[in-house]
Order: sequence, then C-alpha cells, then structure tokens
Amino acid sequence: MIRFNSDYLEGAHPEIMARLMETNLEQTPGYGEDAHCERARAIIRGLCRAPDADVHFLVGGTQTNFTFLSAVLKPWQGVICADTGHIAVHETGAVEATGHKVIALPGSDGRVDAADVDAYCALHYADESHEHMVMPGAVYVSNPTEVGTLYSRDQLSDLREVCDRWGLTLYLDGARLGYGLASPENDLDLPFIAEVTDAFYIGGTKQGLLFGEALVITREDLQPDFRYMIKQKGGMLAKGRLLGVQFEAALEDGLYMDMARHAIQLAMRLKSGLQALGVDLMIDSPTNQQFPILPDDALDRLKRAYSYATIQKIDADRTAVRFCTSWATREEDVECLLADLRDLIQED
Amino acid sequence: MIRFNSDYLEGAHPEIMARLMETNLEQTPGYGEDAHCERARAIIRGLCRAPDADVHFLVGGTQTNFTFLSAVLKPWQGVICADTGHIAVHETGAVEATGHKVIALPGSDGRVDAADVDAYCALHYADESHEHMVMPGAVYVSNPTEVGTLYSRDQLSDLREVCDRWGLTLYLDGARLGYGLASPENDLDLPFIAEVTDAFYIGGTKQGLLFGEALVITREDLQPDFRYMIKQKGGMLAKGRLLGVQFEAALEDGLYMDMARHAIQLAMRLKSGLQALGVDLMIDSPTNQQFPILPDDALDRLKRAYSYATIQKIDADRTAVRFCTSWATREEDVECLLADLRDLIQED
Amino acid sequence: MIRFNSDYLEGAHPEIMARLMETNLEQTPGYGEDAHCERARAIIRGLCRAPDADVHFLVGGTQTNFTFLSAVLKPWQGVICADTGHIAVHETGAVEATGHKVIALPGSDGRVDAADVDAYCALHYADESHEHMVMPGAVYVSNPTEVGTLYSRDQLSDLREVCDRWGLTLYLDGARLGYGLASPENDLDLPFIAEVTDAFYIGGTKQGLLFGEALVITREDLQPDFRYMIKQKGGMLAKGRLLGVQFEAALEDGLYMDMARHAIQLAMRLKSGLQALGVDLMIDSPTNQQFPILPDDALDRLKRAYSYATIQKIDADRTAVRFCTSWATREEDVECLLADLRDLIQED
Amino acid sequence: MIRFNSDYLEGAHPEIMARLMETNLEQTPGYGEDAHCERARAIIRGLCRAPDADVHFLVGGTQTNFTFLSAVLKPWQGVICADTGHIAVHETGAVEATGHKVIALPGSDGRVDAADVDAYCALHYADESHEHMVMPGAVYVSNPTEVGTLYSRDQLSDLREVCDRWGLTLYLDGARLGYGLASPENDLDLPFIAEVTDAFYIGGTKQGLLFGEALVITREDLQPDFRYMIKQKGGMLAKGRLLGVQFEAALEDGLYMDMARHAIQLAMRLKSGLQALGVDLMIDSPTNQQFPILPDDALDRLKRAYSYATIQKIDADRTAVRFCTSWATREEDVECLLADLRDLIQED
Repeated sequence: MIRFNSDYLEGAHPEIMARLMETNLEQTPGYGEDAHCERARAIIRGLCRAPDADVHFLVGGTQTNFTFLSAVLKPWQGVICADTGHIAVHETGAVEATGHKVIALPGSDGRVDAADVDAYCALHYADESHEHMVMPGAVYVSNPTEVGTLYSRDQLSDLREVCDRWGLTLYLDGARLGYGLASPENDLDLPFIAEVTDAFYIGGTKQGLLFGEALVITREDLQPDFRYMIKQKGGMLAKGRLLGVQFEAALEDGLYMDMARHAIQLAMRLKSGLQALGVDLMIDSPTNQQFPILPDDALDRLKRAYSYATIQKIDADRTAVRFCTSWATREEDVECLLADLRDLIQED
Repeated sequence: MIRFNSDYLEGAHPEIMARLMETNLEQTPGYGEDAHCERARAIIRGLCRAPDADVHFLVGGTQTNFTFLSAVLKPWQGVICADTGHIAVHETGAVEATGHKVIALPGSDGRVDAADVDAYCALHYADESHEHMVMPGAVYVSNPTEVGTLYSRDQLSDLREVCDRWGLTLYLDGARLGYGLASPENDLDLPFIAEVTDAFYIGGTKQGLLFGEALVITREDLQPDFRYMIKQKGGMLAKGRLLGVQFEAALEDGLYMDMARHAIQLAMRLKSGLQALGVDLMIDSPTNQQFPILPDDALDRLKRAYSYATIQKIDADRTAVRFCTSWATREEDVECLLADLRDLIQED
Repeated sequence: MIRFNSDYLEGAHPEIMARLMETNLEQTPGYGEDAHCERARAIIRGLCRAPDADVHFLVGGTQTNFTFLSAVLKPWQGVICADTGHIAVHETGAVEATGHKVIALPGSDGRVDAADVDAYCALHYADESHEHMVMPGAVYVSNPTEVGTLYSRDQLSDLREVCDRWGLTLYLDGARLGYGLASPENDLDLPFIAEVTDAFYIGGTKQGLLFGEALVITREDLQPDFRYMIKQKGGMLAKGRLLGVQFEAALEDGLYMDMARHAIQLAMRLKSGLQALGVDLMIDSPTNQQFPILPDDALDRLKRAYSYATIQKIDADRTAVRFCTSWATREEDVECLLADLRDLIQED
Repeated sequence: MIRFNSDYLEGAHPEIMARLMETNLEQTPGYGEDAHCERARAIIRGLCRAPDADVHFLVGGTQTNFTFLSAVLKPWQGVICADTGHIAVHETGAVEATGHKVIALPGSDGRVDAADVDAYCALHYADESHEHMVMPGAVYVSNPTEVGTLYSRDQLSDLREVCDRWGLTLYLDGARLGYGLASPENDLDLPFIAEVTDAFYIGGTKQGLLFGEALVITREDLQPDFRYMIKQKGGMLAKGRLLGVQFEAALEDGLYMDMARHAIQLAMRLKSGLQALGVDLMIDSPTNQQFPILPDDALDRLKRAYSYATIQKIDADRTAVRFCTSWATREEDVECLLADLRDLIQED
C-alpha cells in the first residue's frame, strides 16, 4: 500500500529526528522558554524581516487558529472566510466553540475575494438592524488554500486594504505555507506575508516536522499577554523545547524549503502526468495537493494499492479525489501511480 | 406617522394592561413560582393537551432560543436552520456565543425542508472525516417563518421523521405562532405542535403582550434542571408573575387568538389591496407580514407618513419592504395606506 | 401572610404603572431607540453629571452583570469580587458561562477591600508561572452589598487607585443603589459613583419598577458597539420603551429616591425594634435588608404569618434570616412583625 | 546547573526515542486511527482489566482536563476540586473558559474529602434558591495530588459513594499516576482506579514520554462521540501515531513503572536526607515531589547551582520550595544536592 492521502503520513524528516535525539538529554525550562525556542524565534524574525514580531509555537493547526482568533475577536464579532475554509468545515466548530460565528463567503477556488469582503461589510453597516447581526471582525485566509490554490501579492494587498477600511484583522493559515512558497506560481515571500497580514503561521506538521506551528504576530496591539491564551487553550507544550528544536533544524539551513521543493516537484510531475492521461482536474492546483476526477471503477481498483482522500462525487460515474505529495514522497511511487492509472484508464 | 414596520410598536392589549394593574399590589414569590405562573402553565398544558409538558416563561425570543438550544445540544453539535432563520441572521450570533455552530441550509421560502436535512445528515455521516465536522444535533424552525410563510402538518411530520432518524431535537420558534394559527392557510393546532416537536414557544412580545415567551418542553429527557439554565442565561425574571399574569389574561378566554385573527384579517386586506394595485410580492405570505416590492420613488414619498422595514433591493428601481399588522392595527390605517399607495403608483 | 422575604414582591409603584398605561398605545421604534429611552438617558446623564456616559437599559441584574463583564474582560481574564458577591454565589455561574473565572476574595462584611485586591495582584504578577493562572481583569463590587453594607467614598477611591495600578475595570452593581443612597450612613452620590467607577448600574427591579436596570458606562473605550453585546446576550427588549418610560417616571421628579427613603425609614424602624428586643444581628446593615438571628422555635411559629429568607444556621438553636423593606412596605406591617416577634421571644 | 524544578526537564526515555526513530518512516493513517494507537489502547485496556473502556490519546494535561470535563458537564454544572487542584490554580481558567465554574473546596493536603463533597451537595440542594447557584456535576481529583500526596483505596471508594449519591462524575487526573503507583504508601492499582472512577488519565508528559496523556473513559454513557470533542478542542494530533508509539513502548514491557520506581527511589533518598538534616517539609509527600522549607539565605546560594520551584513564603526567613525527581534524575545529583545543602545549613 502506497499512501498519498495526506502530507502527514510519516514522522519527521531524518535531520529533524536527529536533532531531537541530540538534544534529548538536555535539561531545559519548560513551556517554550528555553534556548532552542528563543533561537528558533530569532531565526523566524530574521526570515520575516520582522524584528518586533512575537513568535509562538503551538502544537497543531486547529489549535493555532481558534487560539488566535478567539484572542483577537470582540465577543460580538465573527470571522469571514471562504466556504471551503478549514475553520468553516474541518475543525468541528472549534471557532464557534469559543463563541464566534464563522461567516463563510462563497469562495473563488478556495480564496476569499477582497471585493466580496468589502461588499459584505458595506451591506452589514448599511443595514438598519446591523446591531442584530454578527459584526465582521477578522478575515481568515489560508495559503495555499484547502484546495491547493494560491493568493497573489495583489490579492493579499487588496484584502489588506479592505481590512483596513473596515477594521478587520487579517490572519493567514499557513499549514502548508512552504508548499505555497515553493510553487512555480508563487509571488509571495515571508517578509511580504509578515507585512501584509496581522498574524500568520508557518506550518510544521504537514511539512516535515513531527508536529508544530509557528505563529507570527506582527500587529503590536495583538501581542500582549498572548501566552495566557495559549496556556488556557491547551496549546502550551510542557516540553516546549521540542517545538523550538524542530523549527531550528528546519529553518536554520533551508531544510524547510528543500522539503517543500521536493514535494512540489513531484506534485507537478503528478499533475502533468495526469493531464497527459487526459484526466480532468477538479481545480487547477499549483501546489502539493492534486485533485483529479477519476472514474469510479478505476478508483475501486486503485484503492487496493494506493490510498487517497475522497473529495466529492462529480457525476454518476466519477469522483474527485486528492493525492498529496510531501518531503517523504518517493519519485518511483509517483511514477508507479501514474503507470497504474494509465493502465486502469485505458482499460476503462 | 403611521407605523407598520413591526408588530411590537405599542405596549400591550388593554385587557392585559388591566390585569397587570389589578394584580399590581399582590405579594407573590419571585422567579416564576407564583400562582399566576402556575395557572398560566396549567392553561397552556391544557391547550396543548400535553399534561406532562414543562412550561417556562422567558422574557424574549432570542433569549428563549439560545437558552433552549444551548441546554440541549452536546458541545460538539450544531443546529440546522433555514438560511433566513432568525438564529442565523438576526440574533448577533447568540447561539454561536454559547459555543454552537448554526448550520444554515438554503431555505425554501423560509422553511427547512425535511429532505434537505436528511441529505445533510447522510452526507455528514458518510464522510470519512465526519469527526472533523460539526455534528448536527437539532433542527430549528419558525412558524410562521421570518418571511411569513407556514409549515403544513405534513411538512412538520416529515421533519419529525428525519429528526428521529438522525437523533435530532426538533425545536419550533413561535414568536408569531398565533398569527400562523389564525392564517387561512394554517392546518396546525397546538396539540399537534406539542406532539410533533420536542419543544416550542408561544410568542407573547409580538402578539399583544408587553413581553414574554412561553417555552413548552414536551420531551421528558430535556426537562430536568432547565430552570438553572434560565437563571444562568439571564432569563429568569425576578417578578416572574408579570409573565404569568399576561399569559393568563391572553390565553384563558381566547384573547390571544382574537388578537391574532384581527391582525390576519387586516393583513389579508392589505395583501389583496396590494395585488389589486398590481404590486408584486417578494413572497406569498399568508400571515401578518407582507412583503410588497415597490418603486423606490414611491417609497421615498411613502416614508414621510408611514414607517415600514426595508428588506432588500430587488432591482435598480424597486425594493422589497415589509408591512406588519398586529392586534393594534386600525382598519382605517390600512385603508389609508392602500389609498396613498394607489396614488403614488398611478402617478408613477 | 405578610411578606418580607425580598424587595421584589409587588409589581411597580402606582405612578410608574400609570405612566405605562398613559403611553401604552403610542407607536415607537423598538430596541431602546425611542424617545422615552432617549429622555431617560438624558435624565440619568444629568443626575450623574456625566454628559458623555453611555446609558443602556437592560431587563435584569444577572443579565446586566454578565453582559458587561464578558464584554470588557479579555478571554484570559477573570473578575475579582467578594466571596458573598452576587456573581460568585447567586447567578448560577453566569459569568463563568461566558468563559471567565470569578475570583472570590474573602470579604469584609460583603465588601471588597482595596488592600486585598492589591495584594492579590501583586502576588499574581510576582509568581513565576503567572501565565498559568487567570489574570485579574476587573473588580466587581455591589453597593449596597449582598449583606446590606455600604462602601464609603474613601473605600471606593482606594479601589479606584488599586484598579488603576493593575489595569482593572471597576464595575459597581447597583441593584439596590437607591437604598444605599438613602441610608443614613451613606456618603456617596451619583456623580461620585459615575466618576470613581468605569461602569455601574442603577437598579430598577428591586426599587419600585416592574423590572429594568440602567447601565451607565463612563469609560470611553468600553462604550463602542455595546448594543451588539446586549442583543447577543438576550438583553435587548423589543419594546425597549417600557424601560425608558419606567426610568423616566422614576427619575424625573425624585420618585426613585422617595421610594428608597420610605424603605430605609421602615428598615431602620425594624432594626431599632429588633435591637430593643435584644435580638442579635448577623451583620450591622444600614440599608433595607436586615439580618436578625432568631431562635428556631420562634421562626417556626413566625413563618405561619410572615415570609422571610433563610440565610444560614448560626448555632444549634438559632438561624440568621433576612427581612427586606421596599417602597411598598407598610408601616403597620413592620409594627405588627415587631409585636409578634416580641411575643414569640418573650415566650421563649 | 542541575535542575530539579520539574519532572519534564528532558526529552523522553531513550527507549521511547528509539521506538520513534524505528517507526519514523512508516506510513500510517492520521488522528489516532493507526495500528500503534490501536495496540497501545489494547495494552491499556488489559492493564486496567477494562475491556470496554474507551482510550484516547491527547497531547497534554490541561487539554485533557478541560476536554473531558466540558464534554460531560451540563451547561449549568460545575466541577468540585481541592483548592490546590490544578484546574483551580494552574490552567489559566481553562475549565471556566469552556463555561463551567470550578468549585474549589478547602483541601486536606491536596485531596478532596468525600465528607466535604457530601456536605457541599447537601447544602446546595437544601438551599431554597439552589437554582440560582451552580449545580455540582463532577469531582476532579488528582493522584498524586499537586502537593505529592496520595489517595487511599478507601478514600476513593468513599468519593465514589458520594458521587453516586449526588449524580456526580468522578474524574482522576493522573499526570503523575506512575509516581503514585510506585510510592511505598500506595494501595491503588490500575484496575481499581478504572473501576472506581468514571474516567482518568495515565500521564505521559511528566513520566518519561516526550508528551501525551492516555484518557481512559470507563463509564459507557460518557463514551459516544468523544473524538468530536477532542478535535474541536485542538487535542487531536494529526500524527496521532506519535502518541500510540510512545505509550506502546512505555507500557508493553513495564518501562513506565520502571521509570516511576527510579524516580520514587531517589525522591525517598532525598526526603530521608532532608529529614536527617533537620529540614522541615511543608507536606509529607510519599511521591516524586518533595517540598522542603529552607532558609532564604541558603536558597540564595543554592540557586547558583540548582534549579527548584518556589512554592510559598513560610515566614520571614524561610520559603517552601519544590524538588522533583524523574526517570532521568541521577543518583549522584541527589547526593550532591544533599551534600551542598548540608554545608549551607550547617553554615547558617
């Protein structure tokens, strides 16, 4: 069985494991106040050219999202996102559980459109009974999005402008940020992201670490006392050094982006291979998630040897599925998958 | 200025005020444990033919909705409603503020369709990552709906069946229940509603009382300890007798339905008058809310003498508005409105 | 049966009822945006000499407390109060239900002591793991307190100073504020209270209105968007004019303080009468709640003709109880109670 | 610098690290549905002789506590614990943040006394206004407690009886459970704990794993749908296998108890050494946390070479501090500490 169903199938990159082994018997203070976390924070501030940013390490993405959003929203505010947004669909109502409505806008290929946010806010405040409706307080975007697409520099700048107009916090979920930055279609970089958003996170779990997300808060008035919030929401790891050690190892010499580039290279090979077979894609994704639409009978046989995620029925005979690549994907497995798919489809 | 913008423009029906005056100097226990509340509860149980129902009096509708729903939903559950549902749109996220997602289904003229609920639940449980999504735990319906439409006996029975299939609590918001029961198109009655739902409320605020909603909980396992919840959520009026006295006065001799019939009679006169003028209606409402689509220039002049609620722009020149009738609406005011509209439209 | 168990036994003062009758058929906008509410707000701003204060009318005290506190506390903050504080004991965890810890300090006769707050905060921030503990964010005081005692001008000034030192919001629950202001021991007035606190409320429910509390927010940064919060928490009465009309009637010509003075006069008569009988008082209360310690066998017979609230067992044979006076208490009932008590105790 | 300030100073036991290395490149399903988690669950069910228990792996203790408690409490219920309880003091209000009051009873050396719980509940339900107070819904105990003490079999049986009497869930926080079971004073075992409680957790973070707690839910009606709750609260690790692998390694061959015994042996050596020096102990702890009361000037010099946790000032010249041992503590470091302490104290 070769697994393509997600990008968190294995443990961590061997170099990261090695670093955990090397530092295992060090005695350190807990809760992220050790020297490894300090150094990882400094590296991240440097990469982002954001010397005044606060950097916090949390364990997972859902936790990072609801901890940040519930810290910054007023009790009567909600957060706008795309209707495919992770917080709207796949976090079991974690944001609502903190008391805030998730306002899902019909997305454009997974993105939130600045003009849609602007129109939503304009309509809200024009309504004579706006006090009876949830006030928009933040915009949540993910890059890459949940369907693998990317924001351009212009799109994020437009969102920033709309957020400033309506007093909204702009937050970017970077669970797969490296895969986005490594994409051939990307025009963003960390300093730009740090500047255009109020906060974002650099994902570790899906990008070669055992676990861990690095939340970067650049807006100063959102920084004070945030560690109280992390503790309250269960995100403050006792052995916080495990997060520091991993991010240090991933970011100090470029390993993080090396892993991302490997995944993107194989994803692009998979994509072109699928297109060569005449397979339709549910969405044109330039990142490590690919969404081919495949005949159901081909899938029935494919699943004996490969795992993938089922996304949605497209029509009576076909289903969109998801294949992910990662730092750990082997080139021969991609070739093997393409070869088997060729056989299945031609047979069909 | 003649006001048609809502059905809570005046105080209370004079008979209800009289009863409050008569009982004003009685000394009673607080918090709904007085003889008036007891008697009003008995009357309601009788009208519903539900001798084992628990009846609680709360102050307002939003309060009643979130108090009940947050008491019965598990922490990981959400409530399904129509996308026009009051809890989805006009309660400032009150349900989300208690930690639960409101799952808004595209409605059919304000109603929740049993087949849509069934499909939603089937899709939820079929999804391999359903534990990552909010579990549906209840269905919220309002009758009349927010756009004045009604459920039929069959539609509610179908919802009941779907709720039983998927383990959902069925809750009916009766803020305007009397107007529904008095409608020429109605085929429901209180005993049926008490049986088909798990809980519902009989609205007072919009139907001739100063304020107050009577929550009827028929499902036994939802009854215990509910008074704790009312207190915690701020709904336990110290002078609870004010609610008992009003519901007693409204329900003991048919005043409640007399008031509702008066409103419906004038609403039907308004509706037929509008249709005679060739005015389009945004929705075909058989209750006390009417939604004509009027030319913007006519509205500009109309608003000097009449108040109404603005609902939505329909096209470049026209807007849908809402006129409400109530127990207090005067026939001559409706005639006057129709006459003025005739002039404005013909001029147009 | 003559009832002394609370100060919300009757409806409202006849003048207030008269005003509700007079205005009953007026058509007004809803949700507190009518002319009566506007005028009542202006009266309150004038009485408080606080022209920039925001004034909101809510239905009840528990609702006012949790709505305000949950609006101003950060998610990781709690509110300090006396261990007898209403929010700590008698609101079914309403504040905790909004996500905030109530930090109950051992009180001094119902009051929060400035030095205790200062020591608590100093200890908090000195602790190396303070991020693992709830940050103090506000101080809740009630005046009169739940046991009838009062704050002096100096005590509140000291609290203000401590609150400024540690960045705490100072909030005063005035459910019985009038009874405090009418006490012979009082040295406060409304302008002082408005200045020394960040927000407080003038109680109506326990002081002669049918219901209603007037929340006065003087600190400017706590004012924006508060109406969203009222709506979300169920406190925005549709017929908000009922609150405006009542506060107008109570405050425009001194009725509110007349009612309070009546209650205090009779409470002082009751207190001196009890002391003359040699009855111990659980607490030396200068307001409308009196807490005599009475023999259990006397209470057994007393309760056939009088209602009172049971507070706590004092020893094997005696129990502390509470008698309240109000605007509606009759002098002859107090004399009657004292006479009967005299008989019961002398018999004893 | 030799650190004794906590039991989570190092990474994980080398055998556990080795197992993480061995399994690192396996491809597994996520979210705890892999074979390692399955096997670890089976081992735990076996050790507890609880074949029908549900076992879930979460990342940390605070997270486990609030996830479980907020899943099982009704919205109007609170949880009783000792005033030293971790949820009452050191979780930044995490339980309150889910909407529930923590009811802290004055403890007896860190324990909750069955008679105190019984008296609290009796008083609650006897109160005429009990609906205005938080209903007790669960009891939280920790074993060992936060001050190192243990429950006996009889004490837990008594608590069970009281919980049954009042309908309370009994939950045991086992962050340091192994250290308790390895103590010379212990008379509990896993099957007893599984039977006497409704749920408990076996701590990993403080007992030689990198992180992780194994929650065992034995009461059947508390089991359904709990994975939804874990996901919502941020506790569902994407690479859940990391938890399974670690608990497998720790529990399959007795490593977990071997580590605990090592810590206890050194803690007892430290304790007897301290006593031989005439040092008072704040509390008589039979587990891996020891709380000597030391002269402040000795501490001033001690801290140049050793870390410890400061607990509280005892008098003008002395402070209670905490030393922890763990699987990783070296015998020579304990001896060195005792020798240095001897010098400092004799000098004094």
